[in-house]
Amino acid sequence: MGEDAPVAKRDGLASVAGRDGLAIVAGRGELPRLLAEECVRRGRAYRVVVFEGVELPWLTGHPSIAASFEKPGRLFAALHAAGLAAVTFAGGLVRPSIRPLRFDLKMLCLAPRLLRGIRSGDDATLRLVAAIFEAEGFRIEAAQEILPELPATPGVHSRAMPSEADRADAGRAAAIVAAMGQVDVGQGAVVAGGICIGLESIQGTDAMLAFVAATDRAVRPKAKGVLFKGPKPSQDRRMDFPAIGPGTFENAAKAGLAGVVVEAGGVMILDHAATVAAADAHGLFLWAREP
Amino acid sequence: MGEDAPVAKRDGLASVAGRDGLAIVAGRGELPRLLAEECVRRGRAYRVVVFEGVELPWLTGHPSIAASFEKPGRLFAALHAAGLAAVTFAGGLVRPSIRPLRFDLKMLCLAPRLLRGIRSGDDATLRLVAAIFEAEGFRIEAAQEILPELPATPGVHSRAMPSEADRADAGRAAAIVAAMGQVDVGQGAVVAGGICIGLESIQGTDAMLAFVAATDRAVRPKAKGVLFKGPKPSQDRRMDFPAIGPGTFENAAKAGLAGVVVEAGGVMILDHAATVAAADAHGLFLWAREP
Repeated sequence: MGEDAPVAKRDGLASVAGRDGLAIVAGRGELPRLLAEECVRRGRAYRVVVFEGVELPWLTGHPSIAASFEKPGRLFAALHAAGLAAVTFAGGLVRPSIRPLRFDLKMLCLAPRLLRGIRSGDDATLRLVAAIFEAEGFRIEAAQEILPELPATPGVHSRAMPSEADRADAGRAAAIVAAMGQVDVGQGAVVAGGICIGLESIQGTDAMLAFVAATDRAVRPKAKGVLFKGPKPSQDRRMDFPAIGPGTFENAAKAGLAGVVVEAGGVMILDHAATVAAADAHGLFLWAREP
Repeated sequence: MGEDAPVAKRDGLASVAGRDGLAIVAGRGELPRLLAEECVRRGRAYRVVVFEGVELPWLTGHPSIAASFEKPGRLFAALHAAGLAAVTFAGGLVRPSIRPLRFDLKMLCLAPRLLRGIRSGDDATLRLVAAIFEAEGFRIEAAQEILPELPATPGVHSRAMPSEADRADAGRAAAIVAAMGQVDVGQGAVVAGGICIGLESIQGTDAMLAFVAATDRAVRPKAKGVLFKGPKPSQDRRMDFPAIGPGTFENAAKAGLAGVVVEAGGVMILDHAATVAAADAHGLFLWAREP
């Protein structure tokens, strides 16, 4: 297939590292940028795959491949032509509105399976996308294999510490996220004084925190509450790994929370120094809780 | 105890019906008004119990007892003095901010148990409240015992019919509500094209629908989506019965949904004629789905 040839041409380090060129399927957030910068740092060949409708303010200076959901056949050909044999998925992609008239041949073959997958929920869709890339000869590389320092290490990372009541709220929120995970929904919940005041759906964590921030104080318990984030049990961690960053703390502070709890090892902290600085600036705690 | 004496004095029909005076603990919405009007219609003695902070625009002309969460002892005494032996709970109560300095003796005894109940979630709290009233000698009467025509009968009530895709979304939403119910959360979810775009927390159904309405169209699937409401499996149906009404359809229409699905027999339709009229006016379906 000759996938390795352009990699070797581009950069000898790729073969030294024993790894081949990487396609970074880029969504929202900081993770795809961090992965691209890691490739640059290690001298690894890569391309950023940019789907229609995805805005990447950091893209300038990075080699990229434009893609559309209707034409996976064209994308696979472009990836092979660029000599990329590994694919990583990073950052949330907005669910596209598909225009069937533009399907390429490959998509015509895949569409029935994909539509069934989408009906079964997020994880089913992602597992299917992974299987499709693998069937095309690509290896799926998890973001945390490339940046193994990102998953949260156990313990309290902030100056502020969770109280006993906060720990109880975190336990209840973790149980709620686990229950939702059974039906392939959400990765986050907000609990205050034992009461659930926010549940994450497809809109994501920041939208849930904005909903909590907008909630009438009279409806909320007196306790400030905690955000808990953790992976769904069914989640394919190669494809989708929950993440927090400094922005999570800006939004948690606006929502009046006491802190943020993540499942240790199950959630990435993007830009650890800036995230802890944001937590400390707002007096919030950041606790990576052992599951 | 003499509970029946004032009832008999007030209205001979009460003894004809074989029932005693009713305390209606009134929260938000139309249900407490419907219950009070039913008492008037049947000539049954009753009092509307109005907790501090609860606004009841319909209260004029109904006999009432003011109450505060800090002084249950005073409330129990007032109910006994009024000769009321049955209590019904109707409409959501905003979780109060409790001022312990104002506790009466009864509340000082009850507070530790109540606080533990609140930490365990909504249903635990309500079951505890029921147990406390029962220990005081009151009989809990469910709203649907008084108004047995309110729980939704199976079938499609509107002119619009759910499509096969809508039925699939309803099935997924029902599974999500059941999973959340396992951890004593929520009574509603919105699913569109298989994707969960709204989950009900303590803020209630209307707040969830406003959240869906505010969601960027690009994030939402192409399918309009359905709201599903159903009781939690653990729910004490004497104390808390999910309900919809015309307002549910106003809000579902603003959220761009295709229709509303309720669990047949498990959700009340308040003002059936006006609710179906609202559904029809917006072209939405109302389907009571057999569990």
